[in-house]
Amino acid sequence: MRQKLRAAVVGATGVAGQQFLLALAGHPWFSISGVAASERSAGKTYGDALGTTGWCSASAPPAEALPLIVQDGSQLAAGAGRDFDVVFSALESDAAKLIEPGLAQHVPVFSTASAYRYEPDVPILIPGVNPEHAPLLHVQRRRRGWKGFIAPGPNCTTTGLVICLRPLLDAFGLRRVIMTSLQAVSGAGRTPGVLALDIVDNVVPYIAKEEEKVEAETRKILGQYRGPSDARQAADSDGALGQIEPLTLGVSCTCTRVPVLDGHTETVYCATEKPAPLPAVRQALLGLGQALHDLGLPSMPAQLISLRDEPNRPQPRLDRETGGGMTTVVGRLRPETVLGEHGVKFVLLSHNTRMGAAGGAVLTAEWLLKLGYFG
Amino acid sequence: MRQKLRAAVVGATGVAGQQFLLALAGHPWFSISGVAASERSAGKTYGDALGTTGWCSASAPPAEALPLIVQDGSQLAAGAGRDFDVVFSALESDAAKLIEPGLAQHVPVFSTASAYRYEPDVPILIPGVNPEHAPLLHVQRRRRGWKGFIAPGPNCTTTGLVICLRPLLDAFGLRRVIMTSLQAVSGAGRTPGVLALDIVDNVVPYIAKEEEKVEAETRKILGQYRGPSDARQAADSDGALGQIEPLTLGVSCTCTRVPVLDGHTETVYCATEKPAPLPAVRQALLGLGQALHDLGLPSMPAQLISLRDEPNRPQPRLDRETGGGMTTVVGRLRPETVLGEHGVKFVLLSHNTRMGAAGGAVLTAEWLLKLGYFG
Amino acid sequence: MRQKLRAAVVGATGVAGQQFLLALAGHPWFSISGVAASERSAGKTYGDALGTTGWCSASAPPAEALPLIVQDGSQLAAGAGRDFDVVFSALESDAAKLIEPGLAQHVPVFSTASAYRYEPDVPILIPGVNPEHAPLLHVQRRRRGWKGFIAPGPNCTTTGLVICLRPLLDAFGLRRVIMTSLQAVSGAGRTPGVLALDIVDNVVPYIAKEEEKVEAETRKILGQYRGPSDARQAADSDGALGQIEPLTLGVSCTCTRVPVLDGHTETVYCATEKPAPLPAVRQALLGLGQALHDLGLPSMPAQLISLRDEPNRPQPRLDRETGGGMTTVVGRLRPETVLGEHGVKFVLLSHNTRMGAAGGAVLTAEWLLKLGYFG
Amino acid sequence: MRQKLRAAVVGATGVAGQQFLLALAGHPWFSISGVAASERSAGKTYGDALGTTGWCSASAPPAEALPLIVQDGSQLAAGAGRDFDVVFSALESDAAKLIEPGLAQHVPVFSTASAYRYEPDVPILIPGVNPEHAPLLHVQRRRRGWKGFIAPGPNCTTTGLVICLRPLLDAFGLRRVIMTSLQAVSGAGRTPGVLALDIVDNVVPYIAKEEEKVEAETRKILGQYRGPSDARQAADSDGALGQIEPLTLGVSCTCTRVPVLDGHTETVYCATEKPAPLPAVRQALLGLGQALHDLGLPSMPAQLISLRDEPNRPQPRLDRETGGGMTTVVGRLRPETVLGEHGVKFVLLSHNTRMGAAGGAVLTAEWLLKLGYFG
Repeated sequence: MRQKLRAAVVGATGVAGQQFLLALAGHPWFSISGVAASERSAGKTYGDALGTTGWCSASAPPAEALPLIVQDGSQLAAGAGRDFDVVFSALESDAAKLIEPGLAQHVPVFSTASAYRYEPDVPILIPGVNPEHAPLLHVQRRRRGWKGFIAPGPNCTTTGLVICLRPLLDAFGLRRVIMTSLQAVSGAGRTPGVLALDIVDNVVPYIAKEEEKVEAETRKILGQYRGPSDARQAADSDGALGQIEPLTLGVSCTCTRVPVLDGHTETVYCATEKPAPLPAVRQALLGLGQALHDLGLPSMPAQLISLRDEPNRPQPRLDRETGGGMTTVVGRLRPETVLGEHGVKFVLLSHNTRMGAAGGAVLTAEWLLKLGYFG
Repeated sequence: MRQKLRAAVVGATGVAGQQFLLALAGHPWFSISGVAASERSAGKTYGDALGTTGWCSASAPPAEALPLIVQDGSQLAAGAGRDFDVVFSALESDAAKLIEPGLAQHVPVFSTASAYRYEPDVPILIPGVNPEHAPLLHVQRRRRGWKGFIAPGPNCTTTGLVICLRPLLDAFGLRRVIMTSLQAVSGAGRTPGVLALDIVDNVVPYIAKEEEKVEAETRKILGQYRGPSDARQAADSDGALGQIEPLTLGVSCTCTRVPVLDGHTETVYCATEKPAPLPAVRQALLGLGQALHDLGLPSMPAQLISLRDEPNRPQPRLDRETGGGMTTVVGRLRPETVLGEHGVKFVLLSHNTRMGAAGGAVLTAEWLLKLGYFG
Repeated sequence: MRQKLRAAVVGATGVAGQQFLLALAGHPWFSISGVAASERSAGKTYGDALGTTGWCSASAPPAEALPLIVQDGSQLAAGAGRDFDVVFSALESDAAKLIEPGLAQHVPVFSTASAYRYEPDVPILIPGVNPEHAPLLHVQRRRRGWKGFIAPGPNCTTTGLVICLRPLLDAFGLRRVIMTSLQAVSGAGRTPGVLALDIVDNVVPYIAKEEEKVEAETRKILGQYRGPSDARQAADSDGALGQIEPLTLGVSCTCTRVPVLDGHTETVYCATEKPAPLPAVRQALLGLGQALHDLGLPSMPAQLISLRDEPNRPQPRLDRETGGGMTTVVGRLRPETVLGEHGVKFVLLSHNTRMGAAGGAVLTAEWLLKLGYFG
Repeated sequence: MRQKLRAAVVGATGVAGQQFLLALAGHPWFSISGVAASERSAGKTYGDALGTTGWCSASAPPAEALPLIVQDGSQLAAGAGRDFDVVFSALESDAAKLIEPGLAQHVPVFSTASAYRYEPDVPILIPGVNPEHAPLLHVQRRRRGWKGFIAPGPNCTTTGLVICLRPLLDAFGLRRVIMTSLQAVSGAGRTPGVLALDIVDNVVPYIAKEEEKVEAETRKILGQYRGPSDARQAADSDGALGQIEPLTLGVSCTCTRVPVLDGHTETVYCATEKPAPLPAVRQALLGLGQALHDLGLPSMPAQLISLRDEPNRPQPRLDRETGGGMTTVVGRLRPETVLGEHGVKFVLLSHNTRMGAAGGAVLTAEWLLKLGYFG
């Protein structure tokens, strides 16, 4: 890398936006060159927009961000491609729907919003999990006439699940998956967020639209891409463009909120097509993403999945920082023999604001940059 | 009832024992006539044994218990049948193993301990769920030569589950059950209990031996009793005595601890033999235990199961006191259609120290007394 | 009381408004006859305005409120005096500033808002604490030409403090007061409320404007009223009307937020003018409000102050429901001898949404009604 | 330093002992050369003694400690001076009383136990706060005939308080101090520790003996040492040995427990002898310990006290890791003018298991080693 790419962060004052700034602070490939937020903050420095009480993390805000003048959405769009080379978007879904396309006309947009996840020409990429979906971005570019593209990450609850399902699917086949999540409050951000009144000494056994998202995204991410495999093929293709055929897999989720600050815990049962003996399961899980290490991606952890053998792990407070929050920690790995089918059970922990949001989006950006997708 | 039966509470200073005292305070059929605890407390009044900081509940301790002299286990055994007519035992399993038989020689013993749950001549009774198992107590008496008997309640996590499974089994048949629990800290009592250090901002995805207990107890409680149906038949029978044949059912549990004070939440998926349309499921659940109402049991709630239609219920803090903590609250009732089999999903909440422990044991005692089992 | 007075609750969908409804449910003197809220809710039934997830309490909403049509502020004002006889206002301060006067033109308004607390013709009344301030309401009526009046309660953190200071001031004189509060999250309501993100595993040592409020309100409530003592005197008086001269007392507060749902804990040090031996302090505290018992006020608890002798009480979770949340619980009563002045230290607990808000306002309404202030 | 000193950690399996291991991991001056614990663990490797669930911290245990064979107290004593050069003791007070003297006969003992804090020949040292007390260790050695010495740190709640009081005392004089603590659960360790049952959604306004300790230790640490100033003088002195004359200062504490994992918050009011204008207060606080920086102590943070100007800081979760947990963070600094005396108020945060326990003890060891006290 000769020169750092200039990155703009949209939605920079919210919880997810702050996580982007932390993920980009001191990044060897990207510099924080622009911040955008709502009109209320526009025109102030980022430091002033935060005020004395607006920063949420124990880690201090990156010094390079504090003097930047906050832009609003339309100002930002005007400078796309000229003032910055890549966008990281932490917008809410409705705002993302409006603003992200104007940015993607000019530069790659990596987003934590769900707005475009379910479009047919938009892949939901996780490095190491579905690399074969990346060429759909060429299709997206051609179909929409964009210089850039929109590459949204999955819902934070999907992330850990598909990371574990990918190797199990490849090794043993999957017949059905039943998952219960115990999700952290940071997943809801600050607006409206989860009130202490609602969650202290409590469990809320429902998160609006979450189960549908996880189920649909899992099937899409594990689905099969059919279409041109590189930019030239995409450019040459006629209207019969690429698409992802979702995996035919029954995924049944119950998503709950618990009084945990960070880190989504998920209990998972998988019925497999073939027998799944534990040593082979361990080997499959530990093997995920090994090929990525050669790329030298700055945000890539030592392991995408780590295994804990202690009976009482993973625990969010003890394990969420594993691999800088980029590693999915799996424990309680057990064969399930009593249900009359081949099965395996485990508990996973995924850091919802790192690998499950900003950190994962930055990793994806690194990976696509390395693969030449920035064009 | 002409005269109240005199009840002794064993393990009376612990969390579960205190719950027994609260469940018996002002009871129309039982009077608190004796309390027993460890040697450290023996000889003191119950009030002195508690000291200024030993009572755990926001409800004050029953006034009638405070002046009682705490006995140790052997003192208590000496007075069984003479000084009291029934025992409620909140002992830890090891102590229960030693002490409960000596008491059961003379009087009925209702216990929250697991010590005798898995013995072949011991039913795990829940009124409304497995009344047909009650006659096994006659067998137990005859086989052991006891005047009384031991009637343990199920593990607090089993209780809510089997209460919901019973009507589903009867109406639709069950093929397999997959359950994740989010359990309250009061379930672990005070010795050793769950340290705040271990559970604040955390989930512990493991409770030692809990999953095995729930799976085995569920199969036993839903199993089929074969044997004499009343005391006379039991007395006349030869050595080929009664037994419970566990239900052949795959039950797969993951038990976790969450930062909740009281109330176990469980997410449940049931694959059923027959289609289980929601109206029929609702009707089945709501019908549980209707026959019990005629008995006028003082601890019987208006409903054994109540249904909540709001999407975000049941919640432990809002719903655990339903029916005085004796009602299992079910919400998020959904057909499960994507898994290639007939299925239904729901979330249940059961108060682990009421219906799931002391309250449930007192209800069982009321029921067996009414049925004439006290002899 | 022949017929119930018709009460309207303003701000009825918020946390404080819901507490008013609970405090008025089945009330022998008041019926819930009207509910008002923001325009978003207006025109719906109260039940529909709550929706399936809007009710915050474990106690169900009063059945009589559910079918009422929610009004907005101006609709409500139009019916004052015609459709209802008294208003309980749970408005935010800005809205209260605008709406309460229009209502007070016609009917008494009891408010939890701070909007009018610091006006010279507005007393901050607590039955048993400053009854001599009540005649200022006559002055307010005359000065403003209102048929009704505005009677705001104190800030929820002031309530418990002045309840304890009143008898100490009377018995021993007060030289200075130093208080640290550990406040519950329900004090912040739901908009914006306290986010779990901000308070789990945390203390926030600041609540905007709270310390100033508590200090000023304490001096006012303990101050001396000078002015006409009844309605006739007030009517006859010229412009030189009544007023409250605040107590000259140094009150120094530090207000913090802690992860507690309900119940404000306060640690208090009082330097007294005269020696304050413990037996006399106990007697003084326990004597508060004894004269009120003859009035038969429905919300009056058995004691305004109760004392706990256990070293580790009061605790919010165990003690906040004392007297239905209307009793201030005091513990850790100690003489303070090392500071070179007469002093006494204690810890108090006051339920911030009961006696400290809606419950206290209803008690004040009962008291003023009994005294003939409703006119 | 040519060669690392060999350190033994006593009480190594508990929370405080684990903190010692973390504070010593990779330490440039000390190597972890021995671990001791109760008989139950003795003879096992440290790793085996922990088992799969015994380690409490998110940071992994130091690799060098895992293969060490755990010794019991008497084994350890036998090797003092031969197998190790310094001891760090995390024993409970009763065990410390018995075991620490035998070790101090041979080597310096740095302890978090209170057992010897109040002995007349034992200073309670904090580098930067009371360096003039260090020579009392010479007196201790001579009086007791020891080659080593016992140097206990203060109670974790005293630490932050005296760190702030020292510069205020020097700059303005202190007339009286009134403090309320909001203490974290880790301060109580694991045996018995604070049960989640007792602290979730709660405050416990009492910690046994804590207030007395803080008050007495504060007066001792801020007191005046009179006696020989170096080892030779101590050796030459007759029986009229050195001592610390406690400061005559009224210190009044109320110690509470709150649902926070780590980090003690304290609200402090100080009446000063002289006016204490804020700029001078800030300068005084920030100046503490500047002289220490020349010594190059490995555990010394950039600042002993840091100031936060945001109104809502310090907060335990956001600020406890400041300076690696070795910095006391002070906020809400305000003059107090209403109490009729010169005064200043603030809120401090001190990490109770770092600077307030193991970290502080290691810092003290570094400091005394550098000053030549190890002999």
